[in-house]
Amino acid sequence: MSHRRKAVVVGAGPVGCLAAIMLSNHGWKVELYEGRPDIRLPSSKAASQQRSINLAISHRGIAAIQSVDPNAAQRFMQSVIPMRGRMIHHVDGRLDSQIYDRDGQCINSIDRTLLNEDLLQEASSSPNIRVFFEHKVQGVDFDKRVMNIRDVSQSCELDVSFDLIIGADGSYSTVRRQMMRVLRMDYQQEYIRHEYIELRMPADRDKEGRLSFALDANHLHIWPRKSFMLIALPNQDYTFTCTLFAPSSELDRLDSPDKFVNWFGTYFQDALLAIGEQNLIKDFTHNPRSPLICTRSNPYHYKDRGIVLGDAAHSMVPFYGQGLNCGLEDVRILNVLLKQEQVSPTKTGNEADDLRLSRALSRYSQERHKDLIAIADLAMANYVEMRHLVTTPLYIIRKAFDNVLYSLTRGCTTSLAEHCGTLSGVEYAEGEPRGWVPLYTMVTFRPDVSYDTVRRTAEWQKRIVEAVGVTTLMCVAGVIWGLRRSKMI
Amino acid sequence: MSHRRKAVVVGAGPVGCLAAIMLSNHGWKVELYEGRPDIRLPSSKAASQQRSINLAISHRGIAAIQSVDPNAAQRFMQSVIPMRGRMIHHVDGRLDSQIYDRDGQCINSIDRTLLNEDLLQEASSSPNIRVFFEHKVQGVDFDKRVMNIRDVSQSCELDVSFDLIIGADGSYSTVRRQMMRVLRMDYQQEYIRHEYIELRMPADRDKEGRLSFALDANHLHIWPRKSFMLIALPNQDYTFTCTLFAPSSELDRLDSPDKFVNWFGTYFQDALLAIGEQNLIKDFTHNPRSPLICTRSNPYHYKDRGIVLGDAAHSMVPFYGQGLNCGLEDVRILNVLLKQEQVSPTKTGNEADDLRLSRALSRYSQERHKDLIAIADLAMANYVEMRHLVTTPLYIIRKAFDNVLYSLTRGCTTSLAEHCGTLSGVEYAEGEPRGWVPLYTMVTFRPDVSYDTVRRTAEWQKRIVEAVGVTTLMCVAGVIWGLRRSKMI
Repeated sequence: MSHRRKAVVVGAGPVGCLAAIMLSNHGWKVELYEGRPDIRLPSSKAASQQRSINLAISHRGIAAIQSVDPNAAQRFMQSVIPMRGRMIHHVDGRLDSQIYDRDGQCINSIDRTLLNEDLLQEASSSPNIRVFFEHKVQGVDFDKRVMNIRDVSQSCELDVSFDLIIGADGSYSTVRRQMMRVLRMDYQQEYIRHEYIELRMPADRDKEGRLSFALDANHLHIWPRKSFMLIALPNQDYTFTCTLFAPSSELDRLDSPDKFVNWFGTYFQDALLAIGEQNLIKDFTHNPRSPLICTRSNPYHYKDRGIVLGDAAHSMVPFYGQGLNCGLEDVRILNVLLKQEQVSPTKTGNEADDLRLSRALSRYSQERHKDLIAIADLAMANYVEMRHLVTTPLYIIRKAFDNVLYSLTRGCTTSLAEHCGTLSGVEYAEGEPRGWVPLYTMVTFRPDVSYDTVRRTAEWQKRIVEAVGVTTLMCVAGVIWGLRRSKMI
Repeated sequence: MSHRRKAVVVGAGPVGCLAAIMLSNHGWKVELYEGRPDIRLPSSKAASQQRSINLAISHRGIAAIQSVDPNAAQRFMQSVIPMRGRMIHHVDGRLDSQIYDRDGQCINSIDRTLLNEDLLQEASSSPNIRVFFEHKVQGVDFDKRVMNIRDVSQSCELDVSFDLIIGADGSYSTVRRQMMRVLRMDYQQEYIRHEYIELRMPADRDKEGRLSFALDANHLHIWPRKSFMLIALPNQDYTFTCTLFAPSSELDRLDSPDKFVNWFGTYFQDALLAIGEQNLIKDFTHNPRSPLICTRSNPYHYKDRGIVLGDAAHSMVPFYGQGLNCGLEDVRILNVLLKQEQVSPTKTGNEADDLRLSRALSRYSQERHKDLIAIADLAMANYVEMRHLVTTPLYIIRKAFDNVLYSLTRGCTTSLAEHCGTLSGVEYAEGEPRGWVPLYTMVTFRPDVSYDTVRRTAEWQKRIVEAVGVTTLMCVAGVIWGLRRSKMI
């Protein structure tokens, strides 16, 4: 007798939904459990506004969705706003546009709720997937393959059996905590000394009185101020979502709305004008000061029966815009490994067959870990770049140098298109980029290159840049010396 | 109206008991909760044998107990076995004694249960302290100052109110986990790639048939074998408790008793003889392979109402024998801070008075953290020293050099006795050792020097040793060159 394997996925955010669809594509029976109410209900909309409402999704996220559900990817690409580059707002009001990619590739601003609703809709309509809201995981018995769930709406508890449990329940994951009880998991959580507050920049009106964007819509706006910064991403309704990142100690000092507005006006004058004093005070008073947490785990799986994905396994600081992209990529990689190990969706009772699942999960932990550590480190390093380095001459020279080399090696550089044809052609990420590809491009636009390879490549690029810098300085010094000796200067 | 503050201490191990006695000395009302049965009951004895049964307690632990309960310290010092140095067992059977301290100071082997029973007895007999066994903490509401407890013997739950909760509930602390829910706590847990197994070396018989120690009783025995090692500590009943530390991968290979005995005999021939093949097989088969976990947290307190001490806050690898010593020292430091901040044991309803407790706990987190990180790092580094370096010529030269400098600077070196008179004279640890005091001596015998100062001092000592080494090499080279030039050699 054989019957279909059953997976429970905990957490119906974008990563959980994509994981559910992926397993159902493989032929598994899937149950998706979410502690909160259905975000598609009107009553939930207000609550979801509390959370970060837009995201920058880039090639890794898109490739992941495409590999699992091409329709959903195509649909949601119609509701994004492409951002071609960073717009740096200097203190004196000057603007600088820094284009992300020589070939015009963009990152995409998307409403978090829209993306989530879309994937949830897709999951709900699959005959293999049942979705349960307001069901909170209380405990997991991995050995008995049973989890205990609290049905909040009915105020009762129930036991749910599974063959595989996927934890996609975010930074404070219950599944991870339960897994730590049966597994020797290395785990680290660190709060950085900065917090963030979300602020809303309303739509402007053009001369004809129509709604318009207060800033250029096709840029990610940054106000880098060294120890703190403001960013803004465009929304479909012509508003911008602004996020202020600052050290807790700085925010502690600003203990009244007046002080805050004064301070804000000093550093972000054009933003203050666009947001408006009243709006700013309202957001400052009502919106929470949220922490930035960075977590790391290892391993990510337990035997053949549990795995954590996305923020549940690795939440990173948001400064590379890779948090969700990386979480979705987790699903893509797991998908590839399940295929490579030929994990069957039916239980045959054959032990060798069962071992395949365990091997796929174990390979995930082994092969994915270095990538997750690499992107966590890169995200942290990018905070320094975003709030300070982007304004320094050295950075701008380096960027120009990057682009010159990128263009010069165009002949031998592989682009994603050359390497895989399309995004959905990305299988696993084992490639090395040929030629000179800038760090930002590799992280953001090259899902065919793993984060770990990106980091290693960036390290040797840095050494070359340093060597070239020293050589150039010496040549210039030599030329000046020569000219002086020949009394030409 | 004023009434006495109430503290609940969770965990009746040595650290929890000492914390309870310390607070009761201050005049607090204390309740001590332990999830396991009373270790003093005969029925519990067998169970407690499962855990590591002896410890090396040194000056920091003794100073801590003395500062809180001089009688207990005096009593328990009568049941220790002093260990003057390390006895290195080489593969070829040679023995090397390495004395710990020029002045003959010793570390002390003590039965964990004896120490715990003694402190528990002391706590139970205090009129200010009530002790509850088989009471497991389920949850803590820090804001309401209530914890939920499960009385295992009665199978019921109860709520217990408190002014202050102290978590001394070990590496997998429930109090810490509950604190992490209300506090932005940095936390890290790491399993090292080594495991340990406890083995028992039975008593020997002398010529007259009386029980005797199979090895020298006044040494800590070490069989350093580079990637793994065996150690042995003496017990009062003439047995030794041996602990084998080895990489998990090495132990995985030894998957049958025969293989294990063969392997053991190859590397620890004299130990195999003293333990006996049958005993070894029994222990190998029945005793667990236990993990080594290292945890770090920060901060350790929550407002004026909660703090974690000992392993609950920082469990370290056991290679400096400082785990319990450091936990007991936590209590001593907290004791000093409560006094310095003049925290009153009665609640006066006066806000300024209440602030003092919050300030004492907050100073604990701020001032103790660097010490706890320092000793965790030193303990990890000492593993390399114990299992390998102790046998290298360079280590032996370095050790000799240390001792020469220690003796040469005797005039200006402060010893603990000179600095504080007695151990109980140690107040806070802010001193710098004058003169040249070897690292091991500072960690083990100088509670007047904080772990952080120890680490910093060791770092500059290392730089001096390196400089002296290079200078010596150059002098020798110079002399040889001179002799060759003058054709004397």
